[in-house]
Amino acid sequence: MAEGKSFAVTERTVPTRARERASYDEATVHAILDEGYVCHLGFVRDGAPVVLPTLYGRVGDRLYVHGSTGSRPLRMAGGRSADPGLAVCVTVTHVDGLVLARSAFHHSINYRSVVVHGTAHQVTDEDEKKSALDALVDHVLPGRAADSRPANAKELAATAVLRLDLREVSAKVRTGGPNDEPEDISLPHWSGVLPVAAAYGAPIPADDLAPTIAAPDYLSAR
Amino acid sequence: MAEGKSFAVTERTVPTRARERASYDEATVHAILDEGYVCHLGFVRDGAPVVLPTLYGRVGDRLYVHGSTGSRPLRMAGGRSADPGLAVCVTVTHVDGLVLARSAFHHSINYRSVVVHGTAHQVTDEDEKKSALDALVDHVLPGRAADSRPANAKELAATAVLRLDLREVSAKVRTGGPNDEPEDISLPHWSGVLPVAAAYGAPIPADDLAPTIAAPDYLSAR
Repeated sequence: MAEGKSFAVTERTVPTRARERASYDEATVHAILDEGYVCHLGFVRDGAPVVLPTLYGRVGDRLYVHGSTGSRPLRMAGGRSADPGLAVCVTVTHVDGLVLARSAFHHSINYRSVVVHGTAHQVTDEDEKKSALDALVDHVLPGRAADSRPANAKELAATAVLRLDLREVSAKVRTGGPNDEPEDISLPHWSGVLPVAAAYGAPIPADDLAPTIAAPDYLSAR
Repeated sequence: MAEGKSFAVTERTVPTRARERASYDEATVHAILDEGYVCHLGFVRDGAPVVLPTLYGRVGDRLYVHGSTGSRPLRMAGGRSADPGLAVCVTVTHVDGLVLARSAFHHSINYRSVVVHGTAHQVTDEDEKKSALDALVDHVLPGRAADSRPANAKELAATAVLRLDLREVSAKVRTGGPNDEPEDISLPHWSGVLPVAAAYGAPIPADDLAPTIAAPDYLSAR
């Protein structure tokens, strides 16, 4: 198998423990990012950490988050291309299973996560901003951006988009069953994995939706 | 209806936007925390933010996260009760639905999140540490702590637990359908909500599980 592109390993992308779970493979990182739409955006304010859930999208080797031009991290990132930007950490996590070991100590979860370190900058180019917003909507539901009204000038002006280049990136993946101690195998406790996944219910039409408009096919992608 | 206990509002728990979604009600905060088991733990390292997914548990008005004694945030929090602790932000997010508006701009998600700001300290009291670890296991699966082998002295020594008091806390909740602009209602795009929830699959027994040990009833709680 040909080896794919990998991200360079840096001091802060090497975990202090469970290093065997770390991956710097670009395809692995992209797949984890593309499956999600909510990230946890971390930044520093007055010396203290702030972590906020927010929507994101990926275009190539760039990650985008958006918000009101009045929101805190967007304002802190500055509005001109010459601004120094905002040091951020963006983390995306998917939980795949609850790992139940015989011992409390070996309980764990199966998960896939990506952590991106870097400096976020406000997007000032109008075309890049539009592509980023399309990506954000398509992360929520693939195919949806083309089936909604694009942002108008007023909405674009009210929306700030932050760009974070995917440079200092690592993935972490745990799979498989519990790692019980040999002397615990004979204990009477059930041991194994309870799989978890996001499940999507039946679409709920808006109250004011015309009854002639059926739910689109791409809804079933979720 | 009697008003329940509320958390004091501070400058950093007031959102800069969508303030109507913010809540400081203790029962609301506890319910959101108790439904989850993975948080995103933020801290500052060399001036830059770090956000890591990790398991957590709640006991009363205290939140606990754990890790190897060698893991970075645990080491940074110090090991003695006199240590200054580690400034953290712990965020828990549940996604309840994808909100599809006619306009790209009004796309959103329904969610419930809790953000806790504060200083985390290593737990040095042995009994508190045991209760915290029970809470962590029971967050993953309620009822599981009593049905697993408790940590022994060696495991307890290898595990560090951080305590974060629930003082500076806010919840944020979005529910309901899309908020389309009146002039967009007649557009031909489907509009509404796609509900999301975590779904749990059939338990997968460990390879070395004795076939006489059936999956316990509390597994169906998920």
